[in-house]
Amino acid sequence: MATISTLHMATLVNVFKVEPEKQDELAQILINATEQTMKHLPGFISASIHKSFDGKKVVNYAQWESQKDFEAMTRHPDAAKHMKLAAALAEFDPILCQVTDTVSAGV
Amino acid sequence: MATISTLHMATLVNVFKVEPEKQDELAQILINATEQTMKHLPGFISASIHKSFDGKKVVNYAQWESQKDFEAMTRHPDAAKHMKLAAALAEFDPILCQVTDTVSAGV
Repeated sequence: MATISTLHMATLVNVFKVEPEKQDELAQILINATEQTMKHLPGFISASIHKSFDGKKVVNYAQWESQKDFEAMTRHPDAAKHMKLAAALAEFDPILCQVTDTVSAGV
Repeated sequence: MATISTLHMATLVNVFKVEPEKQDELAQILINATEQTMKHLPGFISASIHKSFDGKKVVNYAQWESQKDFEAMTRHPDAAKHMKLAAALAEFDPILCQVTDTVSAGV
């Protein structure tokens, strides 16, 4: 489980466009990348992998303590290796952002 | 605060492309839509609004109890009114998906 709050400094929203028959494989690549590499890097908070119901997208919603930590990850050779595998299957467009507001039901 | 877990049945990831000088206005439209309309509809769990550091995107990460609840919202006239305001400022591409895995630091 992960939590979303305005306290998180850097959130990565990465939408991958994929052929539906490759969606499961891509999701597994991202889970492996997270388990084997990302979660051991400084500033990592969480990553949540999502599969679209239409089969055409995979979304990684990841939280880092700072932009600096996120950028250090992108320069790490192990991370680059995982992202190369993902890039072979999908186009993607990483968005680094901050949570400005969270509204929950009944609050 | 919101939580991400594989128990949530329907997650909306909606990426809005916006002119940087309109980013704040668009984020506010989405916050108003959530506070005034979405949060009162059946099946709403949470919505979190994000602004990209480069100014060019706003991301809404919203959780609904089911695809059916999400679809009912899209047909609600009040929701349509809010989305029309957003559409005047930005292109967007809603992705309805399910959380397949969440990995947290140190787990």
